[in-house]
Amino acid sequence: MAGSHDALKNECYQANMELNALGLVIHTFGNVSAADRDRGIFAIKPSGVPYDQLRPEDMVVVDYDSKVVEGKLRPSSDTATHAFLYKNWEGIGGIAHTHSTYSVAWAQAQQDIPVFGTTHADHLTRDIPCAPPMADHLIAGDYEHNTGIQILECFRERKLSPEEVEMVLIGNHGPFCWGRDAAGAVYNSKVLETVAQMAYLTLQINPGAPRLKEALIKKHYNRKHGDDAYYGQ
Amino acid sequence: MAGSHDALKNECYQANMELNALGLVIHTFGNVSAADRDRGIFAIKPSGVPYDQLRPEDMVVVDYDSKVVEGKLRPSSDTATHAFLYKNWEGIGGIAHTHSTYSVAWAQAQQDIPVFGTTHADHLTRDIPCAPPMADHLIAGDYEHNTGIQILECFRERKLSPEEVEMVLIGNHGPFCWGRDAAGAVYNSKVLETVAQMAYLTLQINPGAPRLKEALIKKHYNRKHGDDAYYGQ
Amino acid sequence: MAGSHDALKNECYQANMELNALGLVIHTFGNVSAADRDRGIFAIKPSGVPYDQLRPEDMVVVDYDSKVVEGKLRPSSDTATHAFLYKNWEGIGGIAHTHSTYSVAWAQAQQDIPVFGTTHADHLTRDIPCAPPMADHLIAGDYEHNTGIQILECFRERKLSPEEVEMVLIGNHGPFCWGRDAAGAVYNSKVLETVAQMAYLTLQINPGAPRLKEALIKKHYNRKHGDDAYYGQ
Amino acid sequence: MAGSHDALKNECYQANMELNALGLVIHTFGNVSAADRDRGIFAIKPSGVPYDQLRPEDMVVVDYDSKVVEGKLRPSSDTATHAFLYKNWEGIGGIAHTHSTYSVAWAQAQQDIPVFGTTHADHLTRDIPCAPPMADHLIAGDYEHNTGIQILECFRERKLSPEEVEMVLIGNHGPFCWGRDAAGAVYNSKVLETVAQMAYLTLQINPGAPRLKEALIKKHYNRKHGDDAYYGQ
Repeated sequence: MAGSHDALKNECYQANMELNALGLVIHTFGNVSAADRDRGIFAIKPSGVPYDQLRPEDMVVVDYDSKVVEGKLRPSSDTATHAFLYKNWEGIGGIAHTHSTYSVAWAQAQQDIPVFGTTHADHLTRDIPCAPPMADHLIAGDYEHNTGIQILECFRERKLSPEEVEMVLIGNHGPFCWGRDAAGAVYNSKVLETVAQMAYLTLQINPGAPRLKEALIKKHYNRKHGDDAYYGQ
Repeated sequence: MAGSHDALKNECYQANMELNALGLVIHTFGNVSAADRDRGIFAIKPSGVPYDQLRPEDMVVVDYDSKVVEGKLRPSSDTATHAFLYKNWEGIGGIAHTHSTYSVAWAQAQQDIPVFGTTHADHLTRDIPCAPPMADHLIAGDYEHNTGIQILECFRERKLSPEEVEMVLIGNHGPFCWGRDAAGAVYNSKVLETVAQMAYLTLQINPGAPRLKEALIKKHYNRKHGDDAYYGQ
Repeated sequence: MAGSHDALKNECYQANMELNALGLVIHTFGNVSAADRDRGIFAIKPSGVPYDQLRPEDMVVVDYDSKVVEGKLRPSSDTATHAFLYKNWEGIGGIAHTHSTYSVAWAQAQQDIPVFGTTHADHLTRDIPCAPPMADHLIAGDYEHNTGIQILECFRERKLSPEEVEMVLIGNHGPFCWGRDAAGAVYNSKVLETVAQMAYLTLQINPGAPRLKEALIKKHYNRKHGDDAYYGQ
Repeated sequence: MAGSHDALKNECYQANMELNALGLVIHTFGNVSAADRDRGIFAIKPSGVPYDQLRPEDMVVVDYDSKVVEGKLRPSSDTATHAFLYKNWEGIGGIAHTHSTYSVAWAQAQQDIPVFGTTHADHLTRDIPCAPPMADHLIAGDYEHNTGIQILECFRERKLSPEEVEMVLIGNHGPFCWGRDAAGAVYNSKVLETVAQMAYLTLQINPGAPRLKEALIKKHYNRKHGDDAYYGQ
């Protein structure tokens, strides 16, 4: 039925525009997708279209094997990474990828972002992981699909849960963030960029700055995410 | 009488919106309160509501024990810190809390901000104090109330007056600022963020930069705040 | 005659608003003055009035001894510095004072800004001087008047001409810039802030970065300011 | 025929305004030109005119020897550099020159910008070259023409192609970028500034950060520019 994916495409469109409004992208960089878990599909930004020319109907709907279901434009070149993550992580409903400045700087430095304060702990209790650059034979293969594998292996090795840690840095590349929906993935992208800048400045002021202590990490995370969370309405 | 707190709620609303307009917060971060000293109450931002959705009538009125007096929404999760400060410091009429970037960086570095210049001395004569992170047993207790205790003890130990030093950094967390009213607290939050950035850059340019000399500290502070102040109208 | 200084006050007002629009000030910080050389007077921003409340008629007209000639408000607390510079430097027609971030950082670092590139040399051939902090007995005296003396002495000692070097940093305080008129002073304030940031970044990237060589300094300065200048219309 | 260059002048005007909108210039700094390859001419911004006063009809049309073909204003003082590049590099259709902050900082540091990540490799596979400052006898000669020679010699020595590497830093001065048209040159100017900031931050976080590995450089460049490119529509 024509138009049946309009709500999904609109959610995807709004989230992409918000990514731009938050100052996280330049030119045509970046992409956000929004999943419809019941139908096993997601909508994603078309490749290389400037944000001020995007329209809700330009969003491309694909399945978890990156096969186009609806849409006239070519989907984002990173579509296979999104598809792989949706296929493997059932709990997530939106994904955002940017080249935001401070997040990329940490990725290029090939370093995890240490948890230095409560701004970080309000959102996750772990250092933000930086996955090592991909092995050469995987780069030469299905690169974007393999980026998904790279993220999953990083989480498996470090015993991280995608429900708790909703962001990752790909070494020498940049961040992927996700969430319950597309808006949540964009929200997390801004949090990551902010935390990345704060951690950078912290180490410039005090190269020996200590990690946040465990009691504060747990307290702040549970204020927002624990069983007895009391943040928000 | 219904509507009796409208003026207070409006003052609180305006100050919260100004916090956002000054670029000191992202998402739903930050909160400002405005006290009515005669009635022993204050209005505060509701918890977790985006700034662009806030309305004056959403502000929550509570007493100095954090008991809700008027309002349908849950007050800021930091309400107990505000309440404790109002209860103990009679001279203040507004409080602002942010996670602004440079202020948080100094807090995460666990360092006081040294008085390096007249921009700082126009507002206070002392280094901006960074309270050490809270003891674990206090974190596990009434955390936000104990954050108030943490601030008071820091001021007591260092013999600081809340009328002169209208700002503090909580180690690994971020700043609280206050003032005669809510607008003053927001004003101070912007001053702090500016001074924090200047001090950071100063040490990057010259790691051995000297503190501002006493004669200049006194001169600039008294220009604005002394008995013979001649700044302003 | 009432209204006789309207043009001067309007020039002053426009320049102050431009200072704010260029992002060089926060709150009520900063002030610009515009001189009428024929009458021996200048208009200056009133003290402590927020930029968004300023009106042309609020500008205060004073003579070179800081005596108010026209205006109901108190002039900027820095008026005596402006007056002293107009009195001693006949070639200047406008002065601007800010606490802009990178300029203040260099002033707080008590270091001249080295000429590292053509952006700097397009405007002046010398390092931007940082005057040492004032002696204590001068601070205790007529402070703002003595700030003028401080600037003049710095220029005398270093054999600098105010027509060529239109900016100075006051150690631990911030910049004063001037020009043929108020707009020129504001223009120079933005140039200084930009050059200050570039020089800061240059030294962060390469602590041993060399000064710009003499041939390029002269070439670029003369393109814009020499007898055979060919920049502009 | 009067008006025969209107389309070219309008393309040039739009690109100059975009340079300003992207935050790459202050005051009257910077200039963009747009070439008409069939006619052997290009339009360029007039010298020293503020961006908010520019009009399409103010653009000056010149030939590849910098001789004015149409226009009442004096062309940019950098016109001879543009002319020289158009004359020698037939594949380019637009050129942009800025004094953008991070790009200038690397130029003043006299260092190439290393390829640290995919943001860089999406656009070029080589470090961004920084040409050494010009020899004194060339500065004293036809300076802007010689800046063109300086760029060409840098590319010849390093065996770089202007079709692949569309940007250069002039030591102690700033960047020149180019592209198939004026919009492409402006696009590249923003990419350069972004990559320059990312590389700066990367080295601040990790002074030993490794260059991006060859497999990733090739993969990302070819995604966008190779025979099998699959980025964009």
